[in-house]
Amino acid sequence: MKSIRDSVHGDLQLEEFEVKLVDTPEMQRLRRIKQLGFTYLVYPGANHTRFEHSMGTMYLAGRLALNLELDPEKRTLVRVCAALHDAGHGPFSHVSEGVLETSHEKLTSRLIRESALGDILSERYNLKEVVDIINGQGPLGQIISGDLDVDRMDYLLLDAHYTGVAYGIIDVERLISNMHLDGENLNLRRKGVQAAEAMLLARYFMYPSVYQHHTTRIVNAMFRRCLGHLLKKEALHADEIYRYDDADIVSTARKEKGYVRDIIRRLDNRQLFKRVYSLKLDNLEDPMAVFHMNEASNRRSEQEMAEDLGVEEDYLLLDIPEYPTFNESTPVSVYGSTKTLGEVSSLVVALEHARFNHADLSIYMPEDLAPQVKGFSFRDYLDIPP
Amino acid sequence: MKSIRDSVHGDLQLEEFEVKLVDTPEMQRLRRIKQLGFTYLVYPGANHTRFEHSMGTMYLAGRLALNLELDPEKRTLVRVCAALHDAGHGPFSHVSEGVLETSHEKLTSRLIRESALGDILSERYNLKEVVDIINGQGPLGQIISGDLDVDRMDYLLLDAHYTGVAYGIIDVERLISNMHLDGENLNLRRKGVQAAEAMLLARYFMYPSVYQHHTTRIVNAMFRRCLGHLLKKEALHADEIYRYDDADIVSTARKEKGYVRDIIRRLDNRQLFKRVYSLKLDNLEDPMAVFHMNEASNRRSEQEMAEDLGVEEDYLLLDIPEYPTFNESTPVSVYGSTKTLGEVSSLVVALEHARFNHADLSIYMPEDLAPQVKGFSFRDYLDIPP
Amino acid sequence: MKSIRDSVHGDLQLEEFEVKLVDTPEMQRLRRIKQLGFTYLVYPGANHTRFEHSMGTMYLAGRLALNLELDPEKRTLVRVCAALHDAGHGPFSHVSEGVLETSHEKLTSRLIRESALGDILSERYNLKEVVDIINGQGPLGQIISGDLDVDRMDYLLLDAHYTGVAYGIIDVERLISNMHLDGENLNLRRKGVQAAEAMLLARYFMYPSVYQHHTTRIVNAMFRRCLGHLLKKEALHADEIYRYDDADIVSTARKEKGYVRDIIRRLDNRQLFKRVYSLKLDNLEDPMAVFHMNEASNRRSEQEMAEDLGVEEDYLLLDIPEYPTFNESTPVSVYGSTKTLGEVSSLVVALEHARFNHADLSIYMPEDLAPQVKGFSFRDYLDIPP
Amino acid sequence: MKSIRDSVHGDLQLEEFEVKLVDTPEMQRLRRIKQLGFTYLVYPGANHTRFEHSMGTMYLAGRLALNLELDPEKRTLVRVCAALHDAGHGPFSHVSEGVLETSHEKLTSRLIRESALGDILSERYNLKEVVDIINGQGPLGQIISGDLDVDRMDYLLLDAHYTGVAYGIIDVERLISNMHLDGENLNLRRKGVQAAEAMLLARYFMYPSVYQHHTTRIVNAMFRRCLGHLLKKEALHADEIYRYDDADIVSTARKEKGYVRDIIRRLDNRQLFKRVYSLKLDNLEDPMAVFHMNEASNRRSEQEMAEDLGVEEDYLLLDIPEYPTFNESTPVSVYGSTKTLGEVSSLVVALEHARFNHADLSIYMPEDLAPQVKGFSFRDYLDIPP
Repeated sequence: MKSIRDSVHGDLQLEEFEVKLVDTPEMQRLRRIKQLGFTYLVYPGANHTRFEHSMGTMYLAGRLALNLELDPEKRTLVRVCAALHDAGHGPFSHVSEGVLETSHEKLTSRLIRESALGDILSERYNLKEVVDIINGQGPLGQIISGDLDVDRMDYLLLDAHYTGVAYGIIDVERLISNMHLDGENLNLRRKGVQAAEAMLLARYFMYPSVYQHHTTRIVNAMFRRCLGHLLKKEALHADEIYRYDDADIVSTARKEKGYVRDIIRRLDNRQLFKRVYSLKLDNLEDPMAVFHMNEASNRRSEQEMAEDLGVEEDYLLLDIPEYPTFNESTPVSVYGSTKTLGEVSSLVVALEHARFNHADLSIYMPEDLAPQVKGFSFRDYLDIPP
Repeated sequence: MKSIRDSVHGDLQLEEFEVKLVDTPEMQRLRRIKQLGFTYLVYPGANHTRFEHSMGTMYLAGRLALNLELDPEKRTLVRVCAALHDAGHGPFSHVSEGVLETSHEKLTSRLIRESALGDILSERYNLKEVVDIINGQGPLGQIISGDLDVDRMDYLLLDAHYTGVAYGIIDVERLISNMHLDGENLNLRRKGVQAAEAMLLARYFMYPSVYQHHTTRIVNAMFRRCLGHLLKKEALHADEIYRYDDADIVSTARKEKGYVRDIIRRLDNRQLFKRVYSLKLDNLEDPMAVFHMNEASNRRSEQEMAEDLGVEEDYLLLDIPEYPTFNESTPVSVYGSTKTLGEVSSLVVALEHARFNHADLSIYMPEDLAPQVKGFSFRDYLDIPP
Repeated sequence: MKSIRDSVHGDLQLEEFEVKLVDTPEMQRLRRIKQLGFTYLVYPGANHTRFEHSMGTMYLAGRLALNLELDPEKRTLVRVCAALHDAGHGPFSHVSEGVLETSHEKLTSRLIRESALGDILSERYNLKEVVDIINGQGPLGQIISGDLDVDRMDYLLLDAHYTGVAYGIIDVERLISNMHLDGENLNLRRKGVQAAEAMLLARYFMYPSVYQHHTTRIVNAMFRRCLGHLLKKEALHADEIYRYDDADIVSTARKEKGYVRDIIRRLDNRQLFKRVYSLKLDNLEDPMAVFHMNEASNRRSEQEMAEDLGVEEDYLLLDIPEYPTFNESTPVSVYGSTKTLGEVSSLVVALEHARFNHADLSIYMPEDLAPQVKGFSFRDYLDIPP
Repeated sequence: MKSIRDSVHGDLQLEEFEVKLVDTPEMQRLRRIKQLGFTYLVYPGANHTRFEHSMGTMYLAGRLALNLELDPEKRTLVRVCAALHDAGHGPFSHVSEGVLETSHEKLTSRLIRESALGDILSERYNLKEVVDIINGQGPLGQIISGDLDVDRMDYLLLDAHYTGVAYGIIDVERLISNMHLDGENLNLRRKGVQAAEAMLLARYFMYPSVYQHHTTRIVNAMFRRCLGHLLKKEALHADEIYRYDDADIVSTARKEKGYVRDIIRRLDNRQLFKRVYSLKLDNLEDPMAVFHMNEASNRRSEQEMAEDLGVEEDYLLLDIPEYPTFNESTPVSVYGSTKTLGEVSSLVVALEHARFNHADLSIYMPEDLAPQVKGFSFRDYLDIPP
């Protein structure tokens, strides 16, 4: 048994097999990947890593498995899947995902098959089963990746602890002690409904405060464009993204010239683009239209606006907010019958409508160029109905 | 007024002049310098930065200044000095200091004079005064750098929060509300003595748990030697150390070959050296002898041992523990008369004797070489009396 | 200056005038009145008192007053009103209110006029002004008693801390720093809307978990009926209720015979009535009908059921849930224009509909009598449409 | 399984047998006994009860038992003993103990034998064994009542949480995970020594801050004398003390006349005696002399002083501080060999000497009488060498 001191969950115990997996370079790399990417430019404490999140998720998976009365072999399986679920994440986590064609889940599956992780896992488990669970299949998969999964529980707690934003505090004990396995599904007992509502709300509140904080969105947009350049120039390789850490990207960018170097310098010095235009989604007749906008046409709009404003390419960034899903569709049954949380809780339904409360389509530009946009009709360039 | 959300202290308010200083590249660099260097390999949560510590120290300095009834101009001066006190820190904080000839205090002074920081400060203050305060001179200096300074208060709280080690929790309110200025000195009132004892004890407990945890010492010894190589090869420049961030050092090391590359790979993959020998200081007749050992002769001993063991140079590391000072000598007066804490508190005296409780001189080697040291008499190579 | 250590807010500072008020027997009595009445039978930690709440509310009122830039005289006025706002509470707080004809606000006003509190207050303030503020009148009154008042902020934090139910955690800093006075109203800035939503949700979650927890409702119903007997027998005097403390009621009840003695013995030994019938409000066509039920007819229904079941009077208790209001109607303006929170936040609207999620009309009886109710049609006795 | 939400430890699980014990009137009475007596007059949050402490101690005992790998039957035994260990406490806890001839441990043993507790326990365990464990005998007894017992762990955490005094925070996880059973003794592993030091220090710091805070001592001295009168008058019966709760004592006292009524009125209104004389123990050649002073002679000194000052009997109170023991003598072995903590830790030795740092012999009188003591030589009346 080995013990790791976690600043959120206390002492975490690992058995020998788990230690072997955690000791691989693949897992150790996660110590050098920030959980929230560049969010540390907004919340100075947000330097926590995918590694800590992986350990926390493993711990919560173990607690839930114990409560579900899984046998020790299955319990370790679930713990191990939880620990590995983010192993394929690229540097700066979700931010890098935006410019890749493959999701981090697929990259995780590939990494597991190709690296020492696969060899170690094969000693005790079927690789396909591991990958399926990580991808949320079957009742064990719902533990790792479902509407009320341990992944979410852990990142909400962690992100609250490290940003200092209190909203992420959730009642893990009540959630875990009120879940049970009912054949094919992970079910919630009536007594856990409120804790589930509170968890969905916690996530709702974390969006505008942290994940989609307007400054977070600016730094992410800047970095994403910068990363796009690096990939196009082949300074980095998209299919190797899960081998890099945050420092690799930053130091590669610093060695470049032109746009990439300028953007990384701006991020280093926190000389950020500013929002020069904001279109609130809840003012649109059909807010969904924004999410149906075409990537190619968005880039064209960007170029047209930049041209008409006399601004260099990629110094005007059009940013679509992340589409938040709160209408929990996965069959999380309650009361024995298989209702969804949405059917049981009017609050969960409300989140469906509240989702556009704080969201907007934004346009960013360097601060010194901002004055010249006065009176410019950004709206005319956007291909969305009123 | 701008506000920063700190995960330990809550919302911190900054006035315009302070924002200007904080917005300089020099201060923003601190966001990329880990407060505890490689300690994140021991405590996965220990990724907090010098930037967060600088903001926290500024905040506490402001609270203390308010309590001391300093006028607004002086209060801002003290806050600003607190914010800048670590600006000259090299990457990985204190770890890099070990291989440099200049202290981080001197580097801070130099940086302030040479960079934009100096220009901004000169608008309102005398640069020499700022540097003197940062160096702990005069009553205002004692706020930043004395036995009960706000620097220590903040780092104890921060390090406790991020490592999850409870010992660093101190009663900041009681400390601050019981300090007063008495002419040339920052004094403590009787009612604050216990909070002061508790703070010194907190530091005492943090040594073996965090700062001098045996694994922390190993990674620091490995990194220090690696950094020494980088400086000797002039891959990095010692007098520019305060311009680099953590990623610069790591990526520079990764591009090297031989020893440097091997060590950085080991640190990345957490394949650490092991302790093959330990000499407990409290078993020595004169524990102080260890601290009088000569750096040159230590390196000679290392080489002799390595040779006799058939181990390559720098793959056997001799590590002297940090010398902890607890007998608070600075004139912190109590009860109006100028006693020292040591004269008032028998616990503080006890710490003087307790300091070697946990310390040892250690020798580290790669794990795979460890078996061949069985029966080897390390003690004979050490130039210390029994 | 005097300092009180508060386990939620830290050290609270009181000036001399405030100390004089707090040192009166009227304020000291609040140390002996539990904030949550008999809730300690459900949450063993819920022993906190009206006194601690009064001090916390005073503290938050002072912080808000400072943020609103009120002058020192007004700031003390607001603090003092906050400290006194619950001085007229009877033993076991809101529970006793249920059987009285006068509200605790009116009793507070009367107490202030009749006791030493009035004399002390008159030294500096106009008594009518104090009473008006406590009753929520004018912009200063909204600080103490409005939709986002400091009273609520404090009790949510306090109740969360002492019950261990995490939901009550709110972002007091963000709320307070985003309020401003705009002529006649206390307004919220756009940046504070989310913190306000979160606070209303916190309250929403605390209802079923704490304030209307089904066991809390049972003990409250038992105690209320018991108190009714004591008042009818004139063992206690309703118009003197604000002179008693919790121990007075309990020891008076213990000296009685019959019903009163039996109920207090049951509460002492936690031998509680059980719920034998539950009618979920969200299953009714018009949930509001329950709140329109007539007190006299409810008592009649109780008697009829008791008779038909062969149960002694008052051993069958019909309990209507508390009517929770979440549609914040007071003019809390946002964005400068005077919208209400409900107009700005779809979540606040959702709470309006969610309010009956967890509520039910209940009937309680002693556990040993519960078996004989099997098959009994409670529903037929209730005068509410389907 | 039943679950209790504890505000310090989270959800505590109880099995059916434990629930039966906890549901007895004897255990429920502890909900109405304040853990820290009248300390709520000093720390307004200190209203926590022996019940919460009993549940917390049971929980920690279970965790330790699990770590010691006791079988389920023994584990429940240890948990149950922990839950009952304070069942014989009188009202206001330790304060009432001062005037009784029997210790609360003896009263607990008697209560267990005489009440329903004994009947329930006998279903599964030998009563003598239970009582022996509660009294600290054998290795299981050391879990409940030894130098590093779970009783202390819990009350330090609890008292810190409810008073808001940070010093009581201890590393329960490290302590528990480093204990092991070695034949007859509960031993500590080397890795737990620091956590043990920290726990002893926590207790050391809680003495002057909470347990022996000078105002706590005043209210305790007042209440003790008042209780003495009640017992002498037979308004209460000493051998029935474990049947009363806090409210019984208070309401009995309120019905009395003269001294008793006056003192309870003073406690209710917080019109406390003041310290008119203080003799610091560390100024004495032999501080221990104070603890050898004879109770009878102390009362005589009191009477002589009162007479010479023209003060009524019992309105001048001579108060000896509690004798704090820190030199842990019980054989807590470390490193396998049976050293004591004192032999291993120089800090523990230091506490031995530090113990009189803050202690003094005090004399208290009502505030209005205090002026007339000016110049009075209290020292001359005390029968202690210089």
